[in-house]
Amino acid sequence: MEDVLARLHERLRAGLPADALITDADITASYAHDMASFCEAGTPAVVALPRTVEQVQHVMRTATELRVPVVPQGARTGLSGAANAADGCIVLSLTRMDRILEINPVDRIAVVEPGVINATLSREVNAHGLYYPPDPSSWEMCTIGGNIGTASGGLCCVKYGVTAEYVLGLDVVLADGRLLSTGRRTAKGVAGYDLTRLFVGSEGTLGIVVRAVLALRPQPPQQLVLAAEFASAAAACDAVCAIMERGHTPSLLELMDRTTVRAVNRLGRMGLPESTEALLLAAFDTPDPGPHLAAVAELCTAAGATQVVPAEDAAESELLLKARRMSLTALEAVKSATMIDDVCVPRSRLAAMIDGTAAIAAKHDLTIGVCAHAGDGNTHPVVCFDHTDPDESRRARESFDEIMALGLELGGTITGEHGVGVLKKEWLARELGPVGLELQRGIKRTFDPLGILNPGKLF
Amino acid sequence: MEDVLARLHERLRAGLPADALITDADITASYAHDMASFCEAGTPAVVALPRTVEQVQHVMRTATELRVPVVPQGARTGLSGAANAADGCIVLSLTRMDRILEINPVDRIAVVEPGVINATLSREVNAHGLYYPPDPSSWEMCTIGGNIGTASGGLCCVKYGVTAEYVLGLDVVLADGRLLSTGRRTAKGVAGYDLTRLFVGSEGTLGIVVRAVLALRPQPPQQLVLAAEFASAAAACDAVCAIMERGHTPSLLELMDRTTVRAVNRLGRMGLPESTEALLLAAFDTPDPGPHLAAVAELCTAAGATQVVPAEDAAESELLLKARRMSLTALEAVKSATMIDDVCVPRSRLAAMIDGTAAIAAKHDLTIGVCAHAGDGNTHPVVCFDHTDPDESRRARESFDEIMALGLELGGTITGEHGVGVLKKEWLARELGPVGLELQRGIKRTFDPLGILNPGKLF
Repeated sequence: MEDVLARLHERLRAGLPADALITDADITASYAHDMASFCEAGTPAVVALPRTVEQVQHVMRTATELRVPVVPQGARTGLSGAANAADGCIVLSLTRMDRILEINPVDRIAVVEPGVINATLSREVNAHGLYYPPDPSSWEMCTIGGNIGTASGGLCCVKYGVTAEYVLGLDVVLADGRLLSTGRRTAKGVAGYDLTRLFVGSEGTLGIVVRAVLALRPQPPQQLVLAAEFASAAAACDAVCAIMERGHTPSLLELMDRTTVRAVNRLGRMGLPESTEALLLAAFDTPDPGPHLAAVAELCTAAGATQVVPAEDAAESELLLKARRMSLTALEAVKSATMIDDVCVPRSRLAAMIDGTAAIAAKHDLTIGVCAHAGDGNTHPVVCFDHTDPDESRRARESFDEIMALGLELGGTITGEHGVGVLKKEWLARELGPVGLELQRGIKRTFDPLGILNPGKLF
Repeated sequence: MEDVLARLHERLRAGLPADALITDADITASYAHDMASFCEAGTPAVVALPRTVEQVQHVMRTATELRVPVVPQGARTGLSGAANAADGCIVLSLTRMDRILEINPVDRIAVVEPGVINATLSREVNAHGLYYPPDPSSWEMCTIGGNIGTASGGLCCVKYGVTAEYVLGLDVVLADGRLLSTGRRTAKGVAGYDLTRLFVGSEGTLGIVVRAVLALRPQPPQQLVLAAEFASAAAACDAVCAIMERGHTPSLLELMDRTTVRAVNRLGRMGLPESTEALLLAAFDTPDPGPHLAAVAELCTAAGATQVVPAEDAAESELLLKARRMSLTALEAVKSATMIDDVCVPRSRLAAMIDGTAAIAAKHDLTIGVCAHAGDGNTHPVVCFDHTDPDESRRARESFDEIMALGLELGGTITGEHGVGVLKKEWLARELGPVGLELQRGIKRTFDPLGILNPGKLF
């Protein structure tokens, strides 16, 4: 065992600078986890921090030669354990490959390395009058490579879609160290099967993304937010359906339930209205948002809103968004532990999903706060529990699972944007069914015949 | 041979109604081709016209049992030979599976069978205040199944993207007759590898699409078009770059060169300005298009436009679009034959692409008309030639190839929206490179181990 480890270190050293390799077990252990709770994680054998494509290729060639598993990592802000270490693995951290290689306003693309922070890219393209929409709550920390691996979403999706829609082409180091280029720099392209899209959301199980061509949009005006209070989640969901049915295109349509509102107030002293059962935030980023907001206000009132308050200006809008972005963190502070679901249902079934979640909470005598990208039908029920209480922990796990079962029952998916990782492996099999699972495994074998890329994830 | 054919007919008959099978060789022969010129096509053994998923499954089970190739077909309006028959194949025509199963304005989705005509769906969803953007020039004839198979584009793409972006989920009959469901009905979803996207553009080589969940958008206002004349294609391309660089979002940005303009006038008496070297059409479908059109007019003038004429109203706009949609047909009438390229380059390289195409035409002493989805950098150089003249035919083929080589050199792709089919097989290998090609073949084997699905296409 010692020999194997020594050999691995020696081979890696042959192609990496000294500062690109961490072998000290105390330090490597700190790379074991992403931010998901209650996911198994192994002990890494070594952490590699390459700066170049060639160095990544060296790591993968070594891994193939010695049959060592490789777990790619970005900022480890993921919520499903997809970046958790496997025992004896090479952790391949891409955080040092953090250059923005090109921003091209005519072609509306950026070319980046995987370790670029989402917020860094966003600000950089803003300076060119451009916009990179995907904005997961962790956007100040998470990397583009991680966003691609988990197919991240965010608050913008109801108008602008998810990460997948912004990835045009990729350079990928394969399991055996060969370099693959997929996709394009062009606005369109249909040459062969869409391998680019296959890598997005593949959680590091098919290859290591070392470069990405991203699509950009013109920067829209800053969005103006409206807040509406409802006496029930169902009424808020009615408003969501009405807004979408009438053909509005909000840049954001978010829901926070009573538990979430209170948790956010407790954490951030945000002064949100605590008497409301459901707070709906809607925003528009068009040049003249007034008429849209007025129409939405009317639809909210018609659906039973008890109060509709448009933000005075961009600053007040930003404050409301800040409150919304704080939701998961705030809910994490309610009890000693949380499990965060990510069920997405057709938006016409949103009320059924939220009411069903409340019923699950009542049945198990648990606090489950729900915040949701309501316009997308994407709910994040957060099961709050005391992890030192075995019975409560058991009930929490059961609720977590029942919420996914409910989502599937309502025609939804177990994951709208957080991915599968370790946390939802069994549920993925359930959602895909045997035929889908068999084909997915076949694709995995095509790209990674030795099974060294992020083993134990997805399947 | 006779025995084999008789056995095939007998087995197919066992699971298909009598009117769903054509065995008369005179009629089956009429199913040999799509609309691509100069592509090899074999002789079908039989044509199956199923109405149900079960019937499609029966066809595929039979094909697997007897190891008979299957060539799926929609309206056969494709331009790359992807729907051309293979010798002794079952032609599987999906045209009778033409039901729109659901239109849901809250979830903004439609569920359709593959044989639904694009224009039928478009009109049907319009009646619900919704919009299905993909609009290939053949939209009055082509089917949604064919659009999915070839990943069709159209005039709308500069603002609304291609078919791929509107396919949320699929039901697919696999090579062995099993039914696979991919994707979702929800706005978002990242459960496992994106098999849905893998099928889009796969030209019937991975499975038979029998049902699709499509994303819809709110119907925008009718677009208003502006026409600008330029003394050179390069100047028109400068205008295109300026428009996109300044952050405009036209709903259409199309270019027709002098050859195309004249051909359209000859075919349709459209009264387009024949003195122009390049005619640029730009449109906006926002509620208040005036200021956008004025800004674009200014940018066109700054780029050297000799004339800028905004359409008076929606009717005049529609006339200009009609002229543009007529382009390929009009160019086909210039000489006895045409070969239609579909090269897409980064839009910053559009001028180089068009000028390079003109140089190729001059070198080979040929007429090559160019119309382009200029906003996407997607050019359709149409090589016009006399197919009874062997030397001119040879030069035409050489030009056709040189145009693709130029596209790749400029960082583009050999196909922006028409697909690979038979026509560009060798060029696909060149664009993908050996590593990409190997992986694509691996995916093909995973889905179709016997190689019975549309053999000889793509690779």
